[in-house]
Amino acid sequence: MMNDIKWSKAEKEVARRAFDSAYERECGAIRAKLQEMTASASQPADIWEIHDYLSDRRRAVDGKYDYRYSVLIMVFSRLIEEGWLTEPDLLGLGADKIEKIGQIVSWR
Amino acid sequence: MMNDIKWSKAEKEVARRAFDSAYERECGAIRAKLQEMTASASQPADIWEIHDYLSDRRRAVDGKYDYRYSVLIMVFSRLIEEGWLTEPDLLGLGADKIEKIGQIVSWR
Repeated sequence: MMNDIKWSKAEKEVARRAFDSAYERECGAIRAKLQEMTASASQPADIWEIHDYLSDRRRAVDGKYDYRYSVLIMVFSRLIEEGWLTEPDLLGLGADKIEKIGQIVSWR
Repeated sequence: MMNDIKWSKAEKEVARRAFDSAYERECGAIRAKLQEMTASASQPADIWEIHDYLSDRRRAVDGKYDYRYSVLIMVFSRLIEEGWLTEPDLLGLGADKIEKIGQIVSWR
């Protein structure tokens, strides 16, 4: 079970940094898209389309970035699949964790 | 009662144009603020602040722009108070309506 995984102090630091990097990257992509949409907005409907876009992204991001150690392996697997994390970001995690993440990514 | 007010065809055209103009102006101001906020957004928190701003404005605008003839005198009064309409926009409405709007604006 994921709850049984132990995280050392050093691993927690790596995990926190990776998690924050992924969040920054994904928010950076949302910001770029927002800037693009805003620059070309000319009608009232364009504003509400931007609002719908941000509502959708906020819901997705809030649901995804869950920093509980009991779910972190699943979260990292998903972030890798979506391209917000790459393996080098996880350097420093134990082989047990890297292996689990690799299994989940390859299963799906 | 506001429900008793009769609107001629010509008045309905003036009302519709005034209503649409106010909506365009207010949405234009929201768009300008959105562009300003977006241009200076640098952190993830800035994106969610923009989302909060748009949620707030959308709720306000949706509640305010109610084009039912039974409430239109109240709506126009409010739009004048807030500066989205000016008296020249209402040229062509009957004296009864202009007077009612004037009374409501001066009461508050």
